[in-house]
Amino acid sequence: RGPDLISLGIKEPVYEVIEVKSNGKMSKKNINRRQLLKSSGLRLRDIRSVDPSLWLTNSMPSLLVREQAILLNLGSLRAIAMPERVLVFDHNRKGGKAFLESLLPRLNPKNSSGGQSMPFELEVVEAALLSRIQQLEQELMDVEPRVVALLEVLPNRLTADVLEQLRLSKQTLVELGSRAGALKQMLFDLLEDPEEIRRICIMGRNCILRKGTSEMECSVPMEKHIAEEEAEEIEMLLENYLQRCESCHGQAERLLDSAKEMEDSIAVNLSSRRLEVSRVELLLQVGAFCVAVGALVAGIFGMNLKSYLEEHMWAFWFTTAGIVIGGMAAFFMMYSYLRAKKIL
Amino acid sequence: RGPDLISLGIKEPVYEVIEVKSNGKMSKKNINRRQLLKSSGLRLRDIRSVDPSLWLTNSMPSLLVREQAILLNLGSLRAIAMPERVLVFDHNRKGGKAFLESLLPRLNPKNSSGGQSMPFELEVVEAALLSRIQQLEQELMDVEPRVVALLEVLPNRLTADVLEQLRLSKQTLVELGSRAGALKQMLFDLLEDPEEIRRICIMGRNCILRKGTSEMECSVPMEKHIAEEEAEEIEMLLENYLQRCESCHGQAERLLDSAKEMEDSIAVNLSSRRLEVSRVELLLQVGAFCVAVGALVAGIFGMNLKSYLEEHMWAFWFTTAGIVIGGMAAFFMMYSYLRAKKIL
Amino acid sequence: RGPDLISLGIKEPVYEVIEVKSNGKMSKKNINRRQLLKSSGLRLRDIRSVDPSLWLTNSMPSLLVREQAILLNLGSLRAIAMPERVLVFDHNRKGGKAFLESLLPRLNPKNSSGGQSMPFELEVVEAALLSRIQQLEQELMDVEPRVVALLEVLPNRLTADVLEQLRLSKQTLVELGSRAGALKQMLFDLLEDPEEIRRICIMGRNCILRKGTSEMECSVPMEKHIAEEEAEEIEMLLENYLQRCESCHGQAERLLDSAKEMEDSIAVNLSSRRLEVSRVELLLQVGAFCVAVGALVAGIFGMNLKSYLEEHMWAFWFTTAGIVIGGMAAFFMMYSYLRAKKIL
Amino acid sequence: RGPDLISLGIKEPVYEVIEVKSNGKMSKKNINRRQLLKSSGLRLRDIRSVDPSLWLTNSMPSLLVREQAILLNLGSLRAIAMPERVLVFDHNRKGGKAFLESLLPRLNPKNSSGGQSMPFELEVVEAALLSRIQQLEQELMDVEPRVVALLEVLPNRLTADVLEQLRLSKQTLVELGSRAGALKQMLFDLLEDPEEIRRICIMGRNCILRKGTSEMECSVPMEKHIAEEEAEEIEMLLENYLQRCESCHGQAERLLDSAKEMEDSIAVNLSSRRLEVSRVELLLQVGAFCVAVGALVAGIFGMNLKSYLEEHMWAFWFTTAGIVIGGMAAFFMMYSYLRAKKIL
Amino acid sequence: RGPDLISLGIKEPVYEVIEVKSNGKMSKKNINRRQLLKSSGLRLRDIRSVDPSLWLTNSMPSLLVREQAILLNLGSLRAIAMPERVLVFDHNRKGGKAFLESLLPRLNPKNSSGGQSMPFELEVVEAALLSRIQQLEQELMDVEPRVVALLEVLPNRLTADVLEQLRLSKQTLVELGSRAGALKQMLFDLLEDPEEIRRICIMGRNCILRKGTSEMECSVPMEKHIAEEEAEEIEMLLENYLQRCESCHGQAERLLDSAKEMEDSIAVNLSSRRLEVSRVELLLQVGAFCVAVGALVAGIFGMNLKSYLEEHMWAFWFTTAGIVIGGMAAFFMMYSYLRAKKIL
Repeated sequence: RGPDLISLGIKEPVYEVIEVKSNGKMSKKNINRRQLLKSSGLRLRDIRSVDPSLWLTNSMPSLLVREQAILLNLGSLRAIAMPERVLVFDHNRKGGKAFLESLLPRLNPKNSSGGQSMPFELEVVEAALLSRIQQLEQELMDVEPRVVALLEVLPNRLTADVLEQLRLSKQTLVELGSRAGALKQMLFDLLEDPEEIRRICIMGRNCILRKGTSEMECSVPMEKHIAEEEAEEIEMLLENYLQRCESCHGQAERLLDSAKEMEDSIAVNLSSRRLEVSRVELLLQVGAFCVAVGALVAGIFGMNLKSYLEEHMWAFWFTTAGIVIGGMAAFFMMYSYLRAKKIL
Repeated sequence: RGPDLISLGIKEPVYEVIEVKSNGKMSKKNINRRQLLKSSGLRLRDIRSVDPSLWLTNSMPSLLVREQAILLNLGSLRAIAMPERVLVFDHNRKGGKAFLESLLPRLNPKNSSGGQSMPFELEVVEAALLSRIQQLEQELMDVEPRVVALLEVLPNRLTADVLEQLRLSKQTLVELGSRAGALKQMLFDLLEDPEEIRRICIMGRNCILRKGTSEMECSVPMEKHIAEEEAEEIEMLLENYLQRCESCHGQAERLLDSAKEMEDSIAVNLSSRRLEVSRVELLLQVGAFCVAVGALVAGIFGMNLKSYLEEHMWAFWFTTAGIVIGGMAAFFMMYSYLRAKKIL
Repeated sequence: RGPDLISLGIKEPVYEVIEVKSNGKMSKKNINRRQLLKSSGLRLRDIRSVDPSLWLTNSMPSLLVREQAILLNLGSLRAIAMPERVLVFDHNRKGGKAFLESLLPRLNPKNSSGGQSMPFELEVVEAALLSRIQQLEQELMDVEPRVVALLEVLPNRLTADVLEQLRLSKQTLVELGSRAGALKQMLFDLLEDPEEIRRICIMGRNCILRKGTSEMECSVPMEKHIAEEEAEEIEMLLENYLQRCESCHGQAERLLDSAKEMEDSIAVNLSSRRLEVSRVELLLQVGAFCVAVGALVAGIFGMNLKSYLEEHMWAFWFTTAGIVIGGMAAFFMMYSYLRAKKIL
Repeated sequence: RGPDLISLGIKEPVYEVIEVKSNGKMSKKNINRRQLLKSSGLRLRDIRSVDPSLWLTNSMPSLLVREQAILLNLGSLRAIAMPERVLVFDHNRKGGKAFLESLLPRLNPKNSSGGQSMPFELEVVEAALLSRIQQLEQELMDVEPRVVALLEVLPNRLTADVLEQLRLSKQTLVELGSRAGALKQMLFDLLEDPEEIRRICIMGRNCILRKGTSEMECSVPMEKHIAEEEAEEIEMLLENYLQRCESCHGQAERLLDSAKEMEDSIAVNLSSRRLEVSRVELLLQVGAFCVAVGALVAGIFGMNLKSYLEEHMWAFWFTTAGIVIGGMAAFFMMYSYLRAKKIL
Repeated sequence: RGPDLISLGIKEPVYEVIEVKSNGKMSKKNINRRQLLKSSGLRLRDIRSVDPSLWLTNSMPSLLVREQAILLNLGSLRAIAMPERVLVFDHNRKGGKAFLESLLPRLNPKNSSGGQSMPFELEVVEAALLSRIQQLEQELMDVEPRVVALLEVLPNRLTADVLEQLRLSKQTLVELGSRAGALKQMLFDLLEDPEEIRRICIMGRNCILRKGTSEMECSVPMEKHIAEEEAEEIEMLLENYLQRCESCHGQAERLLDSAKEMEDSIAVNLSSRRLEVSRVELLLQVGAFCVAVGALVAGIFGMNLKSYLEEHMWAFWFTTAGIVIGGMAAFFMMYSYLRAKKIL
């Protein structure tokens, strides 16, 4: 509808996509949005969720099931799965590449070990989920040993370098935890909604979903049975990925918590060490103050002015003793005062 | 009812509104509250939620469906949508302007590409949601690159200026996250409540909602069918906006989390650098103390008092050596003591 | 029952209450607990929730519906509403006064604009909720501009005075947010429990609630109809207050979040400024150390001891140059060392 | 069963309990676990939850309903209530004592004011809940005025003593909030589970719970009626205690929040005051540096070396003026530099 | 299926497992994954959750019920329970050992005290849960006294050593709380899902679960009765472990909260003590500054330059008095200024 086009403010963009057919054939295509809408039976609104140019406002992972297509938005992977082919946007980004690497072997008939294989669109969904989760797991496996090593080394070596590494690891974990959490939520919502799963199953079949009860009704009874088994299969598959995702999310959260607690402890540790340093400084300043007073007395007697004490024999030694003993006495008085006040 | 008027403490206010008719005609009007209540069939209590003068106590976004009107309160947009017209309060504020810019092209018959268009009140609701979400997305797109740039530059350049920018970005993200979160909650609550959606559909139709089951009952069966399709349409529309809103909220939260973690890390970094500085200071103070003691000794011998050492040839060099060696010895003793205590 | 009395450890207390009749007549009364129990049909246990002497252990707002009375506990307002009269405890406290000010005009027949008015106990409940929410809104309106002004002024003016104002505002917001949150929860729980609302409606009517289904059954069918309409009316009224309460709570939380973030940023800002100061101090100490070493050398030559250098013409200028150049060289060496170590 | 015994690793322990009969008779007993299991019809596993020797692993409050006994674990009170008697473990601890003090008056027939009393096991449950909640309320009433006093006195008096009091109060509130929260959760779970409540009612009656629907079925219809009324009674009783517990929990949380916010504000306040002190220190160091340079110049001229300036009349005053004016100039130059850099 | 093998990237691994038969016989085996899949009737995907080589991505505890096997993943225990035998992976790790120690006595017929014992797979599940919970409880019992001791000693002894202990305890508690929380969640999810429990019961029996209602249907009616009783037994067993787990989790959280609050308080305490130290330092610096000015004056008069004051008798005493009195006056002026400014 017209207003949509205007309100979106985009004029007939052309997408560069990779098309993979169910027989594994891969081809690069430039597809016009109008063509895309026609061939996939999607609405303009749906395409927003996979349009790579809107990456900031569709950053949440989503898996939308429409009548003839499944829209996949998982991190940097944006794809539209249809019963016979899948269109991958932004195929040069990490997510797109990983997805293709995961999908292509599945389509090779040599790899399917005899038994009947899953429908194409399900292979696509599984490859997409798998590549996304493996990517998260890989990142976790990269960051985990670094964090563990940091946590062990930190209490003793607080260099700026190590702190910077801790900061970077925390940043990575915040990012990773948030992405794993969003994916987990998406899988959980999908599992909670049996209607959505059934809609995946009837795709490409001669079935409809009855309103209200969301029961499947097929023209061929056999199909209904197969679709039901498929639904169960999808559920188990999703549960499996959900569990992997939860493990990933839980582990990232746990590491982040540990890193945060470590940072809090470091702050207290630094604070306590600064206090230690300050107290020694204070002690030195007390000493320096006493020495300074002594030096002042000595300086006064060093003036080129006559005090008429110059003639006394004892004057030098008396004054020197006075300075030394007075200074020490002052030092110990101040020291005990500060001790008593618990400042030193 | 009387007591309400008194309890609200407002005496017959006059609202300056912009009225937009379903044919796109726009006119400025001054409308008395009594008139407003009569013409819209609303209750006094309902108007509170859109009254711009109460902005502090109705700051939560809301979309209230009443029998003949939909009350919209989205940020700085306050409007009452009725089947044939919409009244926009506070049209000079950002939300009102954006809404009008989004609504007017939709009402232009040239833009509707042939097909049948949505009822007027739905166009209004969609325009309101769209303008609001686009505003949030725009703010996010403005703040996002700034935060990312800050996060990259920060560990190395901790100037007051950069910290102030971080503070301002955090403030913006808190604000943005909170507003996106409130809008998301409102959309979610609306989607959870099918009765509310059906009430939007029967507006201006000859239908009623049966009590208890909330089923629609229409005098003309055809109308029921259209209303049902419309309800589905509204649901998909709301889901779509909910998803955009969630992306926006999630992204704002993620950036805020990153900024907070960064701030915590900066605090620890600063603390560690202060400790570094303090330790060098301490080292210098140890040195300065030793020098001061040496200076005191020198000062004592510089007094205009006779020590009867003046005559000895070796006295000068002996004393000088004593001061220098003693000072160095004292310095290294203190230094090793503090090293051993792990203070230095 | 006896044991209760003992376990509560209170012996027949006398409450000073204000009684307001449904015709607006107000009278002060001293009422014995035994009498109170008899006249209201309440149990001993119920009275706990409104007993002002137990303010610490019944601080949660509550609205309890019993067979012949509604117990109101909203902040400092404690009241028992019965079909013909309401008893207000602690009428001198803020909540009690505001309630009476809100209730009395409602009972004045002049104010009711012709139409039929709500039953007395509902007027009481509405007056109580309204006075409570207006109080919260008033507090929010008081604190809001102060916080906004603080947030603007703070980054530049970090005086103890401004920090103290920030602290007080935060304390107020914590308090306000917690009270608005508790009230919101109470209203939400009430709305979630249709049985409770129906129990309000059948009060003073010849109806009963059927067990299990919670359907109302009335001896006169007309009464059932009126009660049902009343229930709907109460629901809308509660929803309205819930929304106001949510706005209030949301706004308080948002301001508190902003204030907290501000405080965190201030802490980092202060830390960074202290580091700045420390670094300049360090620079000065490096300089002072070099000067002190020079002064020691000068002091040594100033001793009243013969170095036999006195006779050389060049000795003074040579030594002076040595002190000055040596001091400067030492300063620049230390300075560049600390620069290289990124400490200075 | 055998393996349990082994896995628990405990060999036939003997419990020292106080037995209270329904007529109020109290006696101390040593009871063997085997006997306890036989006489109460409990399983080995159930006893874990009240075994005082396992205090660390059954610290969560619980109220377990078994066929012939109710197991009570509320803080330091561990008891098994049976239709005719109650066994109190660890009767010397605070919880046990408070429980006995609350229970015994209830069993005294003089106190029951004529009316029919509750079944013995319910009296026990109510006494246990009451004594526990009163204990929590007592603790809250003890800590509350202390915290309020601290919050008022703190901004002005930041002594170590006051900070220590704040710390202790926070610790108490964390403890109290956590215990009130656990009790609240237990009561809430109990109220959510009508089957559990019905199981309490049929204890000692000739009734059973039908599977699935959890409806009570009694051999005597009259009994069913009484049991149903009792269930309602228990529900109201639990609701009442839940509310008291919520008030307690909410108040503790609110005080803790206030104390935490106060601590954050104190940290910022201290940080700001340290900055103040540091800046004055810096100012003094700038001054001291200038004086030291002057002293160095004076020291140089004080050396026992001939500068051949000694003979000039003006040399002394010229040098003195040079030192004083030079020092001051240097001071003001540094001062304005640091002012311009906003460091001072 | 083929693609799975590839996507998992593992080529036919061999697991070293310990097999325990239901008669208690234990044997070490090397089992190929293909064999494992065949003998257990599991799918490739299921094995992921117990594969010890994937410890990072299946760290969440899980208990999966499949048709002929229960997959156990509890911390470092990974096992597959089948009706007649259990396979334990990674038997040398802590969890595996504890499990075997807990399981073997249960299988010894001497220990079963006459009565009928549970089916083998249930014994396995109980032994696994028990060994896991006992391990958590043991860790809690280890850390708890240490934390309590720290919390008592901390306010007075803030040494680096004690802070390090606090940090380590916090780290342990974060870890423990997170693991107990995950186990609690797993048990809770299991209890919420009656179908899962019934699937455990029908394992090895001639029963099936009817779709939709999840009712058990057995070929022999007697079996259904036994299975139902077993389901109840499992539920009580799980509830029991859930409660122990909750106690453990709650206690760990409470200790962690206390430790965190303590750390916050320590930070404020340290900050306040540093301020104290800084203020004394400032005082000394004020004093030192005055002394330094005095020393400068004395130094000036000590120069080998003629001021022509040398001849005056009073000059020495006058200057000395000037230095001392001037220094003191300056000190007290500065001191009172800083007092007035509340800096000192």
